[in-house]
Amino acid sequence: MTVQAPPSVPEVLGRCRELVLPALQEAVGGLHPWVAEMAAYSFGWCEVGGAPAAAPGGKGVRQALAVLGAEAAGADGRAGVPAAVAVELVHAFSLLHDDIMDGDGTRRRRPAVWKAYGTGPAVLAGDALFALAVETLARAPQGPGAVRLLSAALADLVRGQADDLLFATRPPAGPERVTPEEYRAMAEGKTGALLGCAVALGAALGGAPEGVVGALERAGRQLGVAFQLVDDVLGIWGDPAVTGKPAGGDLRERKMTYPVLAALSSPVARGLPELLGRPERAEEAAALIEAAGGRTAALAQARRHTEAARGTLAQAPLAPRAAGELRTLLDHLAGREL
Amino acid sequence: MTVQAPPSVPEVLGRCRELVLPALQEAVGGLHPWVAEMAAYSFGWCEVGGAPAAAPGGKGVRQALAVLGAEAAGADGRAGVPAAVAVELVHAFSLLHDDIMDGDGTRRRRPAVWKAYGTGPAVLAGDALFALAVETLARAPQGPGAVRLLSAALADLVRGQADDLLFATRPPAGPERVTPEEYRAMAEGKTGALLGCAVALGAALGGAPEGVVGALERAGRQLGVAFQLVDDVLGIWGDPAVTGKPAGGDLRERKMTYPVLAALSSPVARGLPELLGRPERAEEAAALIEAAGGRTAALAQARRHTEAARGTLAQAPLAPRAAGELRTLLDHLAGREL
Repeated sequence: MTVQAPPSVPEVLGRCRELVLPALQEAVGGLHPWVAEMAAYSFGWCEVGGAPAAAPGGKGVRQALAVLGAEAAGADGRAGVPAAVAVELVHAFSLLHDDIMDGDGTRRRRPAVWKAYGTGPAVLAGDALFALAVETLARAPQGPGAVRLLSAALADLVRGQADDLLFATRPPAGPERVTPEEYRAMAEGKTGALLGCAVALGAALGGAPEGVVGALERAGRQLGVAFQLVDDVLGIWGDPAVTGKPAGGDLRERKMTYPVLAALSSPVARGLPELLGRPERAEEAAALIEAAGGRTAALAQARRHTEAARGTLAQAPLAPRAAGELRTLLDHLAGREL
Repeated sequence: MTVQAPPSVPEVLGRCRELVLPALQEAVGGLHPWVAEMAAYSFGWCEVGGAPAAAPGGKGVRQALAVLGAEAAGADGRAGVPAAVAVELVHAFSLLHDDIMDGDGTRRRRPAVWKAYGTGPAVLAGDALFALAVETLARAPQGPGAVRLLSAALADLVRGQADDLLFATRPPAGPERVTPEEYRAMAEGKTGALLGCAVALGAALGGAPEGVVGALERAGRQLGVAFQLVDDVLGIWGDPAVTGKPAGGDLRERKMTYPVLAALSSPVARGLPELLGRPERAEEAAALIEAAGGRTAALAQARRHTEAARGTLAQAPLAPRAAGELRTLLDHLAGREL
């Protein structure tokens, strides 16, 4: 008996992307031509003006989770395609609008849509992607339950984004400061809800029973929180060559991420608030956060959520091959370059 | 036998508002508190900061259409409440985002949400209202078909808004100019789709057969186009004391509405382009549009759509009382103060 090596992360992502791309392009192609161009630009398929491009899109984690969710339910991966299209559309919508809200002018090394096309058009393009996501699912065979899953995730996504915007207005010290637990809840909404929804939707379209759909949703949410925490650690201590962002970038921008918030709970970090947002003192801030236990706390918390996700997956009755690929993806996303 | 006078338009709108308001307030109350405040402000329920207010909200036409749709299907008006809540939420979402896109700083004599709370928060509040509308319907008993109706209307709404934004970039003369027919199609998307959806959704939740749902949707769309055309006429020749807007306001702002576009098709209006957007020459422009037949063409087109809507209603098997109230509403909306 020969044992075949399990597929690597790029292989899993590539296979799912290939399965989903035609349906995603067809859905986007049905939009108003101007809106379709903005959407295509945001996916990296074209330049401003419509000339074809092959700019980096996202990794396609959400579409892969949806396809694997369907396969984990014992169905063909194709059953998960409408779910994959819907979650990629929602993800694109949320990036378009978040970049406006956060004033981020760059996305994947290109001008953000609002920078390239204007704020009003970018609001409109986001709305169109949102509507298209709902339409895609409403037309799918398991429509009703699927739309319920998606709309619940959308509500959590918006709630997480609202908290994220409000957290930036709260002081770094004193009783009004954001607690690490509030941050975790925000991350579950902002990042976890859509990852959980992706895999659960895929499973639902694949005909999984409610218990399995619920378990996959929980696992996806736990993965989302772990993913965000790892992202936070990389945002401070990541290798710029790997992350593509300047060293200590999040500290220069004064982002109140989990390691910072956890450090601020310790008396060791009393001097931290005055270092944040000062590019020339980013290295000093990173050392202080580490000394105050912020890095350890974030990694421990990420590990806890990864373990929880792994445990949830292990207990659900899933098709073994898809379950293996889900684990591969999970380990990769929650353990990148640490 | 005594014949009871049919209820007046304010009576119809008031009765429907009373039926829907508790559910609408409950839905909005479940949002993130910050987002809920922005939503409540946009409905006229509170001031910035949350203090209770009774500022003018909308007329509530969409919620009334949804309730009457359910009643026209022979159901209790309460059956249409989830539809009414959903369409009012979508309407509020579209006003929030449209005001950003159009740069309109005032809405119902108060600062628009983006002026009062900032652009980013207003984008977010619109997204939240959109998501809540979908969630409300997805939870309703006739969810699947209902969500399909709503998402199709949303797609048309966004398409209409995209055309509206693009029309403003096209020249007033020459082969590139916007034709009256293109304008009509835009108005059907931007205004008609949601009115049609409102009454069709109400009927669907009231258990109407597909044919009746489709007829009501068509009637609502026709009403929407007529409504927009009448609005255009009032925007140029309306009595400021009644419309609450300055005389000739649309001409000062250089809005390319139906009467303007229809006039531009006539050689009589050759001098019109240079008068548009010049407040001191608004009266002259209005006279020229009238002389070129723009006003007559708009009113004739409005009458044609109103008649079509009336005909569509007459052919559908509807509960007589609700059908009567729908006609009352239609006559009012398509024949305001002309």
